[in-house]
Amino acid sequence: MSRLLCRHFPRRALLARPAYSARSYASSASAAPQFNWEDPLNAKNLLTEEELAISEMAERYCQEHLAPRVLQAYRDEHYDPKILQEMGELGLLGATIKGYGCAGVSTVASALITRAVERVDSGYRSGMSVQSSLVMGAIHDFGTEELKEKYLPQLAKGKIIGAFGLTEPNHGSDPGSMETTAREHPTKQGYYLLKGSKTWITNSPIADVLVVWARLQETGKIRGFLVDRSMCPPGALETPAIKNKTGLRASITGMIHLEDCPVPKEHMFPDVEGLKGPFTCLNSARYGIALGVMGALEDCIARARTYALERRQFKGNPLAKYQLVQKKLADATTDAAYGVLAAIQVGRLKDEGKATPEMISMIKRQNCDRALWNARVLQEIFGGNAVSDEYHIGRHVANLYVTQTYEGQSDIHTLILGRAITGIQAFV
Amino acid sequence: MSRLLCRHFPRRALLARPAYSARSYASSASAAPQFNWEDPLNAKNLLTEEELAISEMAERYCQEHLAPRVLQAYRDEHYDPKILQEMGELGLLGATIKGYGCAGVSTVASALITRAVERVDSGYRSGMSVQSSLVMGAIHDFGTEELKEKYLPQLAKGKIIGAFGLTEPNHGSDPGSMETTAREHPTKQGYYLLKGSKTWITNSPIADVLVVWARLQETGKIRGFLVDRSMCPPGALETPAIKNKTGLRASITGMIHLEDCPVPKEHMFPDVEGLKGPFTCLNSARYGIALGVMGALEDCIARARTYALERRQFKGNPLAKYQLVQKKLADATTDAAYGVLAAIQVGRLKDEGKATPEMISMIKRQNCDRALWNARVLQEIFGGNAVSDEYHIGRHVANLYVTQTYEGQSDIHTLILGRAITGIQAFV
Amino acid sequence: MSRLLCRHFPRRALLARPAYSARSYASSASAAPQFNWEDPLNAKNLLTEEELAISEMAERYCQEHLAPRVLQAYRDEHYDPKILQEMGELGLLGATIKGYGCAGVSTVASALITRAVERVDSGYRSGMSVQSSLVMGAIHDFGTEELKEKYLPQLAKGKIIGAFGLTEPNHGSDPGSMETTAREHPTKQGYYLLKGSKTWITNSPIADVLVVWARLQETGKIRGFLVDRSMCPPGALETPAIKNKTGLRASITGMIHLEDCPVPKEHMFPDVEGLKGPFTCLNSARYGIALGVMGALEDCIARARTYALERRQFKGNPLAKYQLVQKKLADATTDAAYGVLAAIQVGRLKDEGKATPEMISMIKRQNCDRALWNARVLQEIFGGNAVSDEYHIGRHVANLYVTQTYEGQSDIHTLILGRAITGIQAFV
Amino acid sequence: MSRLLCRHFPRRALLARPAYSARSYASSASAAPQFNWEDPLNAKNLLTEEELAISEMAERYCQEHLAPRVLQAYRDEHYDPKILQEMGELGLLGATIKGYGCAGVSTVASALITRAVERVDSGYRSGMSVQSSLVMGAIHDFGTEELKEKYLPQLAKGKIIGAFGLTEPNHGSDPGSMETTAREHPTKQGYYLLKGSKTWITNSPIADVLVVWARLQETGKIRGFLVDRSMCPPGALETPAIKNKTGLRASITGMIHLEDCPVPKEHMFPDVEGLKGPFTCLNSARYGIALGVMGALEDCIARARTYALERRQFKGNPLAKYQLVQKKLADATTDAAYGVLAAIQVGRLKDEGKATPEMISMIKRQNCDRALWNARVLQEIFGGNAVSDEYHIGRHVANLYVTQTYEGQSDIHTLILGRAITGIQAFV
Repeated sequence: MSRLLCRHFPRRALLARPAYSARSYASSASAAPQFNWEDPLNAKNLLTEEELAISEMAERYCQEHLAPRVLQAYRDEHYDPKILQEMGELGLLGATIKGYGCAGVSTVASALITRAVERVDSGYRSGMSVQSSLVMGAIHDFGTEELKEKYLPQLAKGKIIGAFGLTEPNHGSDPGSMETTAREHPTKQGYYLLKGSKTWITNSPIADVLVVWARLQETGKIRGFLVDRSMCPPGALETPAIKNKTGLRASITGMIHLEDCPVPKEHMFPDVEGLKGPFTCLNSARYGIALGVMGALEDCIARARTYALERRQFKGNPLAKYQLVQKKLADATTDAAYGVLAAIQVGRLKDEGKATPEMISMIKRQNCDRALWNARVLQEIFGGNAVSDEYHIGRHVANLYVTQTYEGQSDIHTLILGRAITGIQAFV
Repeated sequence: MSRLLCRHFPRRALLARPAYSARSYASSASAAPQFNWEDPLNAKNLLTEEELAISEMAERYCQEHLAPRVLQAYRDEHYDPKILQEMGELGLLGATIKGYGCAGVSTVASALITRAVERVDSGYRSGMSVQSSLVMGAIHDFGTEELKEKYLPQLAKGKIIGAFGLTEPNHGSDPGSMETTAREHPTKQGYYLLKGSKTWITNSPIADVLVVWARLQETGKIRGFLVDRSMCPPGALETPAIKNKTGLRASITGMIHLEDCPVPKEHMFPDVEGLKGPFTCLNSARYGIALGVMGALEDCIARARTYALERRQFKGNPLAKYQLVQKKLADATTDAAYGVLAAIQVGRLKDEGKATPEMISMIKRQNCDRALWNARVLQEIFGGNAVSDEYHIGRHVANLYVTQTYEGQSDIHTLILGRAITGIQAFV
Repeated sequence: MSRLLCRHFPRRALLARPAYSARSYASSASAAPQFNWEDPLNAKNLLTEEELAISEMAERYCQEHLAPRVLQAYRDEHYDPKILQEMGELGLLGATIKGYGCAGVSTVASALITRAVERVDSGYRSGMSVQSSLVMGAIHDFGTEELKEKYLPQLAKGKIIGAFGLTEPNHGSDPGSMETTAREHPTKQGYYLLKGSKTWITNSPIADVLVVWARLQETGKIRGFLVDRSMCPPGALETPAIKNKTGLRASITGMIHLEDCPVPKEHMFPDVEGLKGPFTCLNSARYGIALGVMGALEDCIARARTYALERRQFKGNPLAKYQLVQKKLADATTDAAYGVLAAIQVGRLKDEGKATPEMISMIKRQNCDRALWNARVLQEIFGGNAVSDEYHIGRHVANLYVTQTYEGQSDIHTLILGRAITGIQAFV
Repeated sequence: MSRLLCRHFPRRALLARPAYSARSYASSASAAPQFNWEDPLNAKNLLTEEELAISEMAERYCQEHLAPRVLQAYRDEHYDPKILQEMGELGLLGATIKGYGCAGVSTVASALITRAVERVDSGYRSGMSVQSSLVMGAIHDFGTEELKEKYLPQLAKGKIIGAFGLTEPNHGSDPGSMETTAREHPTKQGYYLLKGSKTWITNSPIADVLVVWARLQETGKIRGFLVDRSMCPPGALETPAIKNKTGLRASITGMIHLEDCPVPKEHMFPDVEGLKGPFTCLNSARYGIALGVMGALEDCIARARTYALERRQFKGNPLAKYQLVQKKLADATTDAAYGVLAAIQVGRLKDEGKATPEMISMIKRQNCDRALWNARVLQEIFGGNAVSDEYHIGRHVANLYVTQTYEGQSDIHTLILGRAITGIQAFV
């Protein structure tokens, strides 16, 4: 279990924390309960010892190793693939998977990791989510034993990098209309030929393996394929990067162009057809996002609070003394507390086999919406200073917009919920 | 424990449910988990068997016995004191108190009762909250053993009715400035004389006993007194009703005028001084409101959903098919689900001694705000028809405005939270 | 022109103003311009002398003669038909019509009258709008010269009362599906028989004449009929009142039941077919509402401001000193100022023949939405005291909900605008 | 008058318009009025022929000459100083000033220019606003005739560039606490020495002249100084650029460091003391922003509309067919229409001498708030594609955040309005 996670953690002393992160991990043992603005409704009370330890370890890694490089990475639109290796060494990747070199922890524990990473940057979390939930999850849930044994351990270590190709240029919210096809190779037996384009694919430019969803010509059904770049002939697979992004600039995003790319038949997931496959993976990723974005919001709260306490205007009063400022902090803190509880609840239900996709739609939608909303409101506390990227709040705001749109744009989840509540679909 | 509650429950068959209440209590035993719009994040999974049973019993009583009379009562601004007796017979009053004829159930169980009552009407819940949390709570927490034994069992049965006098005409949000005084009786030994006015006091016109907070002249400190109407000389205690209310019309509200009213010294709570006393009681009441208002919101959701499914416009489509309608339902359902989880969490912490007043400020504020907001948005689904009181939604909207303002107006809780988050008070 | 209006105005002295109405009509003549919270963007600068005089006269009448009776009328759900007579005497009814005993003023002048009336109560304004825009407007725009000469002068004086029957029980937002029919009388030549039901009809229980829209059997087209109650045989026309309304209680609302009611053919509007007829009338009424609701909002602002200045909490500070309170006032004042300017602009365009129905949808929707929103937020300033109807704010809030839903529910206007912007209809 | 403006306009044909800008300048002459989503409430009807011509000319220049370069400029954080020269050639700078080579047009005409520029980019508008309103305005309103004649004509041509130094690192919203000082030069007669730092100063790194506000030591009063970089000894004036901004990246921003910088006494504005000076200039700039940001919002609407019409999802329907999308467009269009009317109204009042600073606070606050809000909502229509900067919407969103914070952060204007409404200041 979490042995794996803890074993890998370097035992050096806690390094100096970055200036604006005042988060405290120590649990106080005082008699009378104290309100803790960092965990206002005491969600920690719901966690196991193991989960607390994993969370603390992940937070420490992220603050020590990710936080110091994010500013420059975001400016340069640069993603360092070594990050996945570091995460792999700590056992953070594919953490809910049992076996294959993975940690086998609870769904909640795994989401606490995403929260720790997203506290630093949603882009870093995106890179990890793709590797863990979408790629490793797809191979674990749908791959043959051979595929699992060949790829999962390396993915778990971050030695190879994965990408997940579902979205197409003309089919963002409606993957059921995808145009990418797979057809029997006309000459080379035991191979399919994949043809089509995917876009907004996190990690694609640096990916070693790509889970690609395509319509199988012989049946018309959507199937999943594991494309191993090392097996692709030149020109058959192109993965150009998309540059000049307005958010998630610390992650790498690209397209996937498949030009009659041959893929061995054993690399097609054997037993899953239609959208069930990708949606199962998305479900896991969305769950991770739901707690992840709370980390980003919590970082915004911590930074805004610090700024409000330090910045003085009008007769030397700290901004924190103004009612309009306190309201922004109170609202954000409340939404963060509620969002964390809801995510933990769904995580528990997931492990008990009681979660439904609509629940995940609900928490993904609500937590992304509220994280974005509150981050924007908290940004106002910084006034014009938020224009400097060194306050980090502008980066969170830009990132959180993206989290609201991917893995199901907010309005799409609204309609999924509407359908679940009324029994009537209103997509068209 | 809940024996008491269950023992009293009349074993007759479940009566026909009212037209617009489509709530189902049966738990489905199907294999694959299903999304349930009435409990979207499966909060029931957090409840004990006993809590589920209490909740079901309370819901049944409320739907069978309260729902049928609320429409007329609200129109007439009439409160039937027999309601408290009925509740008393079922063991619903002061339910968390152990002994003294009370049920001694968990904090969450008690709040599930308030939710059941408030699903029908916030005014009915107010009447009960005052009896249970404010009056019985005050006597239990601060009264002498004699007072407890004399009053609690009768209050628990609903045979006598209590009121709680804190708010004054000029001091709504700031009870620390209260003007009501208690002074030594100049002639009659062993008595204090109470003088002053309280307003917006639920139950006061029909109350047999009134917990009154007053400033003790000799110390200048606020103290609590149990005023027994049967002991008051004529003219010393007046409790005129406040009529023509714009909300909570199914509860009864009034003033308390004390004109040198003599109260025996043994009726002063012995060991509590300052605002700690009333705030402790308010804390309990606020907690009950936090889950209670979710009941009102859930009723709005159920009614709006039914209306949207039945009402057809434009080519015979049910309103439920329109995206703008589905969004209203999805938003409300999400807020209800989150609010219920947060309230259960704080209830558990309360029983573990880990809850703080700020937590209760947070959930009282947020749940009242969101209940009101969503009720108003759901009301739009009814269009002009909401103007008919027979759709009930207008009543909930009017009631929920009041819940947002009493027991700490929303902005006051904002500033309580702001102070807790920043360490700086901004009331002045 | 406005001679008529001014001539009728009783020349007695300005009576004492009601406690909470601190509106000043005097124009200051100071050198440096001063910010006036009652007219923040100096909309008066856009008005003619005549319009200013009409506005002042109407405001005076409303404050002197309507304001004193609204509280009791609202409590009792009572509408005094003498109000229309009083308005008629002042020339306030059908004021834009030239001739037939009407004042013939500008569209803006007419809307300033609705604003004055709605500053007191939206129900009073509704009763007047129906008389002026819907009934007199319909007769003027579509009636024969005989109908105009017979009915308009009496309607203008308020000696007879009109109602407008468009909405049906099953067709609120979609009048094109109406079920009421008109067919050739089988025996009595020169007569149609009207059959069907209308609901939510302002003034219907006391109406002398009713404009009724029905589908003419021979053509299948919607036509307009002027039903004169004095001509209807017993039982053919029933107009029961709808009671227990949750808003607009100072206006009278009812149904119209037509049971093969004979109507002379000359009472069918000759030249208008389809929805063009009712929509032309609604357009005028909606325009009046757009400026009318600003009056209600302005009254809420004035009352909330006064309350905030007089009510003291926490160290004796007036509520007006708190930032959270100032924000509510600033937001509301801004929306009122913007809404007034937009309504004046569309009024001017209307008189120049440049207004389109979509413009009116825009200002009706926006001004009703913002009036309701801000009234609710201002209500929070009153805290629990708003529950007393004597503060009037609760009444405005309840009324404004209704204005948002009638004459085109807000979402319907959203879709009208959406269609105008995109060229694509999304009603279905 | 506008001769100047028109004379300079190059008479070549209208170039091809950028892909996403579908704005039409042609006025239709059809009989029945048509709703025009680009000018929903026909604000053009309020403009003079001259104003229409100036607006059209400015729009054409901006679409032809600014729009093509903004994408790359924003990516590179590059501001081309030639832009001010081009604007100068067209007579767009300091356009309300009469004489000194300026166009002498109405306040509204001048704001139509800012709207045209901000339709392309708020940063471009910022650069122009500083030159026109803050620098030329300050010199014109407060400078000696010598200063006016020396500097205004060159500034009007864009041959020299100006900056405006008010904000200090520790005094953003509260300039009254500024620390920059001016003292008599101890040795060089007729000179002051300026010492202090200013930050977030648009144009400062490339400015030839800088209006600097400093506290005059001998009186303690704030005075204005025109610092001419060509007169400053090396090291006395440093203006480092601030890089890595999260918004307004197409404008250039920097600091001003004055290290005992000698300034001739004739360069101190003679007759203005205290905050009146800078606030007068800010007032003009804020006015321009109020209409300017409407241009940015209108561009967002146009782009979102085009995208919604072209992008198809779910059975080939354009996004524009979805109710949730239409609502976003309807809301934004309404706010744009209202904001334009309010800005025109205040412009007219300004020219009539009837505008007050609070009016400008109101429209600056509201229009910036609504532009930002709606731009964010419209961004949702683009889903994940908004992450590509080629859709421009992300740039507008990032820019509009900044407009909300500078020239008076939104909350500060709230409190200015609150004070004006209640007579009570709540800054502290």
